[in-house]
Order: sequence, then structure tokens, then C-alpha cells
Amino acid sequence: MCAMKAEIIAIGSELLTPDRMDSNSLYLTERLNSIGIDLNAKCIVGDDESSLEHILRASLERVDLVLATGGLGPTEDDISRKVFARVFKQPLVLDETILQRLEERFRSRNLPMTSNNRRQALVPSGAQVLSNDQGTAPGLWLESESKHAILLPGPPHEMKAMFETHCLPRLAEMSRGVRIHKRAFKLTGLTESACDARIAPIYTRYRNPVTTILASPGEIEIHLKATASGDEEAEALLNELGDKIEMELGDHIFSRRGETLEQIVGMYLTMRQATVAVAESCTGGLVSERLTRVPGSSAYFVSGVVCYSNKAKTELADVPPLLIEMNGAVSREVSIGLAEGIRKRAGTTYGIGVTGIAGPSGGTEAKPVGLVHIAVSSDTVVDHRETRFPGDRQRVRWWASQLALDMLRRKVV
Amino acid sequence: MCAMKAEIIAIGSELLTPDRMDSNSLYLTERLNSIGIDLNAKCIVGDDESSLEHILRASLERVDLVLATGGLGPTEDDISRKVFARVFKQPLVLDETILQRLEERFRSRNLPMTSNNRRQALVPSGAQVLSNDQGTAPGLWLESESKHAILLPGPPHEMKAMFETHCLPRLAEMSRGVRIHKRAFKLTGLTESACDARIAPIYTRYRNPVTTILASPGEIEIHLKATASGDEEAEALLNELGDKIEMELGDHIFSRRGETLEQIVGMYLTMRQATVAVAESCTGGLVSERLTRVPGSSAYFVSGVVCYSNKAKTELADVPPLLIEMNGAVSREVSIGLAEGIRKRAGTTYGIGVTGIAGPSGGTEAKPVGLVHIAVSSDTVVDHRETRFPGDRQRVRWWASQLALDMLRRKVV
Repeated sequence: MCAMKAEIIAIGSELLTPDRMDSNSLYLTERLNSIGIDLNAKCIVGDDESSLEHILRASLERVDLVLATGGLGPTEDDISRKVFARVFKQPLVLDETILQRLEERFRSRNLPMTSNNRRQALVPSGAQVLSNDQGTAPGLWLESESKHAILLPGPPHEMKAMFETHCLPRLAEMSRGVRIHKRAFKLTGLTESACDARIAPIYTRYRNPVTTILASPGEIEIHLKATASGDEEAEALLNELGDKIEMELGDHIFSRRGETLEQIVGMYLTMRQATVAVAESCTGGLVSERLTRVPGSSAYFVSGVVCYSNKAKTELADVPPLLIEMNGAVSREVSIGLAEGIRKRAGTTYGIGVTGIAGPSGGTEAKPVGLVHIAVSSDTVVDHRETRFPGDRQRVRWWASQLALDMLRRKVV
Repeated sequence: MCAMKAEIIAIGSELLTPDRMDSNSLYLTERLNSIGIDLNAKCIVGDDESSLEHILRASLERVDLVLATGGLGPTEDDISRKVFARVFKQPLVLDETILQRLEERFRSRNLPMTSNNRRQALVPSGAQVLSNDQGTAPGLWLESESKHAILLPGPPHEMKAMFETHCLPRLAEMSRGVRIHKRAFKLTGLTESACDARIAPIYTRYRNPVTTILASPGEIEIHLKATASGDEEAEALLNELGDKIEMELGDHIFSRRGETLEQIVGMYLTMRQATVAVAESCTGGLVSERLTRVPGSSAYFVSGVVCYSNKAKTELADVPPLLIEMNGAVSREVSIGLAEGIRKRAGTTYGIGVTGIAGPSGGTEAKPVGLVHIAVSSDTVVDHRETRFPGDRQRVRWWASQLALDMLRRKVV
């Protein structure tokens, strides 16, 4: 059982700067793995014809399948089309179908089509054109003597849509037999080391699936990867180890199929026909924004208010001025006041109240930067948590939104 | 003036999984750029001798300087030492000094030294050994016929300490005099091709600075990189081309030093002592969330409301029910009603109103998914824009927030 091997080339000078990374390859790796194709190497190269040509030739010597992203746009420095045509010894010809589609696209948007856009209609003769439903640049699939090169656009949403539609099915066909299955548990409310201490005695007994633990702020992912000669066998391997891990971690795990926390919360709210409203201060709209990222959230999200000033807390969420005066805006009482006020005003099942100090300034000795009070209320009970989150403004806000959503999850589950 | 060119090879199978990225190269790129060395490409390869050898040889054909990270540890799969010795045709010999230092290190920590650790004392004969103050694996600097290869350990803190101490001074010496300066313009309100059509006639006349155009949803970045024999000359090169680009693009450019749109908006609001409040529907809190990402935003951000339902639009932003009934919730009138309602209620200088259909469902023939109405009002005038954004829910929301912030910027600037 030997997996087919591929390499990825990411093209674009911006990917060679200190502030950009190629992240397309992560998605591609995941998808390739899912159909039993392993990654041998990846290269990142700038908008330089001779380097790209050299790298592409070397890559095609090592493996039979090369996927490239980027460098397909209409600007002067987009060179992929030209170099791939040269390496595959196929002349560039104007594709009338692509040209027409480009012209239509511009017409429908009422934009003038500049002449540099015509360049996107050039394709190496004999190459298969991969249509782009999300943008202007079509992709290409070149083939010669058992070597395959696939050229995808750089913008992630264009690249993904094209890969899913035009590449994945054909590649799955090519790699027939080997299957790599994965499972990802997401959890919150545990530190990485506490999590590892609990599950290391379990997963270290298995070489297949392979277990990886990944920590990001407020969230831990446990990835299992099983390689087998069929779907059923791979799934059985995942179940055996996965069930043990689930048993150990219990309701710290909020998702088993990669769903986000807001998706899980939305799923439960929908299932219970419950609704929610949010009154938030330091998170500045992030809790509402995350809840409404989910398609269909209008079924359970009724309203949200962002009340930075004390006046806004009173006017938008009916928090009594005296309550703020007596306890301070960042307090247990005010977080509960926000949750209760917005719940009653919006007439929802649940209310969320968040108040805190996101920083960098505004902290005091008694109430330091990172201090956050969160309340989640229903008509029978109010849950409250006081926490001090580490990190900068962005991280404090993220941690706080994470805890608020998790508190709601545990109530509605 | 031509900058010296380098390539980076990151070694380690874990860097070829979907959940890991090589981040060492970002640090190295920044440090290399600072001493006038340009990055030509980077490659990531697993613990596989033949692939590493092939990639290293190809890399040394393209450039004179290769930096590699990882694969120096004591385990079986750490192969860098062996492969580099082979490519540089130098036999591996046991370095007694390194062996002694290793033995001391283990003794001082009271750990037994396993025999595989001896492997770390093998060095290609003639290579310069780079001592590792932070870990066990020493680095290596190999040289042959004007080709240089530097092998650094994978753990970031070991790699950085070693690079700063042993590599940076010598590399700066090698690239003597060359300086690389950068400038980044950010703009919105133009498509990538429209932007390029306007500035290509300008920047294509310059080979130095090098211009790169980067498009992300609703935003374009233009990066200029000047290489010169001194700081002043580099700055002058940037000014010459940069001024022409600024002249051409005018107020489409919102930032010159990498600031985000919300930072720029915040800067102007602060300067004018103006304030803002937001009433948003389809963006679900994103406009408020972006405005409040900026430290100190409490000085100008007063309040925000997320009103998904018609009832919430009336209750939270005083939009007359009749207005909604007559025009529909997604309409010019309601966006203006939201902006005006929230501005008056919050007593702010500016009000922002956003209403639209983010999708994926909810669209009709007359009001399709992606249709968004945005209004920005002050006490003298209301600006309104109706647009249809492409893409999925997340993108429609992002585009809409981008346009709303840009409309505010143009008012307050």
C-alpha cells in the first residue's frame, strides 16, 4: 500500500516576503491526503520566469503530479501560464470560449474590460481548461508522458472551488486504493498540557492513526490520521482510538467534524427552537459577528448591541445607571444586567452580556487589562464567569467571545 | 546594484502536514532583507534523503547561498548532515570538540547520553561548526566554489540565536553595502485589473524598485521594494516611483505604512474629534467589530446595534415600520433610516447603516444574494451606495464592511 506522491508550487513574489505565507498548500495537502495522495515537498517561488521554470522541471523529475497556485492573473507579473506552456512544450493559443466568458463577466458587472484581461484567455494548446466560477482566471491541467501539472488561481476561494469541482474527482480516480481518513476533535476549556496529560496515555499506544495536538487561543484540536487500504478499515481505526479520546474528554469536546463553535451553538439553538440576543462591550460586536457568520442564523439571532459607553449600556440594554455606578462598568453585576436587559428587551430565550478591559490601556490594579465578566441568562437562571485572559487586545477579545459562546453551548446543549 | 540572492530549505516531514507551517523562513527572510539579501525561493521537504539531495542541488544551481533549517537532531530521520556532506563532497568526520561538549551537556543535566546523540558530532570535513548555546545540535556552514550552505537547527529559539551570532555578521559582510527598503500602499474601491491598468504604465518603467500588486477581497496592496547601495539612495528610489503612483491613484489609497482601514478611519475620527455609531443588519456586527479592533476606539466609537429582524431595526435604530413596509428591509431608504436613526439616537457625528442579503439563501430576483445598501450620514448630508457583491456569505459581509468603512473614511478625511 504505497500512496501516490505530489508536490505543490506556490507562485508569487509576495509569498517570499516576511509578512506573507502560502496557506493554499495547507488546504491542498488536506484534500490530497483525503484521497490517499501524500505530499513530497512544496516550493514557494516569486514572479520570476527562470526560477519558476527551474523549480517546475526539478519537481517534475521527483514526482508525477505537481499542483501550482497563483500567477494566473491579468497583471504584467503573472507568468505561470507562459512557463508551464514552455515546460510542457505546448504553444499558447487564444481560447475563444474563455475570452467570451471574460467579456460577459465584465459586461454583467458593468465594468470595462481592459486589454490585459485578454491574457487570461491564453492557454497552452492541448491543455484542459478548468473553469473558474468565482473569478476571471481559468485554471489549467497539463499532461505529458504520465506527468501531470495542475495550475490553479491564487485567491483561496477561487482555488478551492476549482479544485473541488475539476481536480478532486479525477485525482481520486488516479490514486485508487489507498485511503487516508482523518478526524478532528475541537475542544475548549482545557489547556494544551492538561489535555495532553489526559490523552497521551491513550494515543501513544497507537502508531496508526497518527495523533497530532494543535493549540490556538481558546481552542485545542486533536487530529487523528488513519491510513488504510479501504474506507471501512480507515474508519474502524479512527473509531477505535477516537471513542477512547471522546470518553476521556467528555463535554470539553464541542465538535467532531470540524464545525466551528458558532456553528455548533447555532445547531443546538435551531434544534431547541431557541433564540439569542447579545449585549457586548469589550468584544465590540465580535460575539454577534461570530453568531451571524452562520448561514440561517437569522432564525435564532434576534439582535445585538455594542455598548461601549455607560450611557449606551443603559439606553441599549436597560442596565440601571445606579448599578453601573455602584459596581463599575466591568463587574459581575453589569455583565448580568447586560444579559438580562437585552434578553428581556429582545424577547429571546437567551441573553449574553460581556463587559471587560481589552486593553492595551484602561486597566487598573483592581481591574487589570484582560479582566472580563460574561453572563448568559435564560428566564430561569443566569450563569456568570469572571476570567482574566492573557495577551493583547485582539486575543482578549477572541478569548472572551470563545468563552461566551461556550457558556451558551453548555446551556443549550 | 544587484542584491545577493538566497534560498531557504525547511526540512521535516511534520512541515508537510495540513496543520503545520514553516515559520522559521519568515524570520530569516526579514533578517536577510535587512542586510540587503533577497529571497529567490523557499522549499519545504520531508525527512527523505533523495528528495532533500535533489532539492539542495537544484537550489545551489539557482543561487549562491542556501539556508536550511531542521533535520539536525539525533533521531534516525534527521538526515541533513549526511545529505549536505554528500552534495559538498566532504566526508563526515567525528568532531571531538562537539562530542566533548555534548557529553558535558548531558552530564551537567544528569541525563544518560544515548549513542544516537554521537551522530550530532559528525561534521563534513572542512565545514565550519556553528555552536548551539540553546540546544544540542550544532549548526554547519559549508562552502565550495563560491557556493555557501548554512545548516541551522529547527527549533526557532535555537535557530534564531545561532543565526544572529554566527551568520548575520558574516552575511552582512558578504552583501556589503546593499540595502533593501520597502513601501506598501493599500487601497480600496478599484478592481485589481483597473488598478494595474492605471499604474502599469508607470511602474513597468522601473526595474528598481520592484512593484508587486496583491489583491484580497475589497483591498489591493501595492508593494515597492528598492535595492540600493545605501539607505538614502533606497529611500530616494521609493519616493520617485511612490510619488507617481500616489498621484495616479489619489484618494483610492488609504494607507502608506501598512495601517488597516479601520486604523486610518480611527486616526481621522480622533483628529477631527468626531464620533460614530453603527446600525447593521447583514454584516452582523462586523462593522462595529472592525472599528473597535483599534486600541483607543472608545474615544470615537459610541455604540453599535445589530438588527437582523424588522422589529429590531425599529426598536434599536428608530426605523419607522412604514418605511420598511413600503421599501422592504433591504433598500436605500432603510439603509438611510438605519444610519440616521442610530446617529440621532447615539448623538454622534456620523451614523453608518448597512442592510443587505449576505446569503446563501434569502435572495430574490429583484433583490439577489450579495445586494447591499450602505448609508453614511452626518448632520448635513447622507451618502448612499447600492452594490452587489460577489462571493459567499463571509465575502459579502467583508466587502460590505470594507465599503462602509471606506465611505466613512472619505467623509471624515
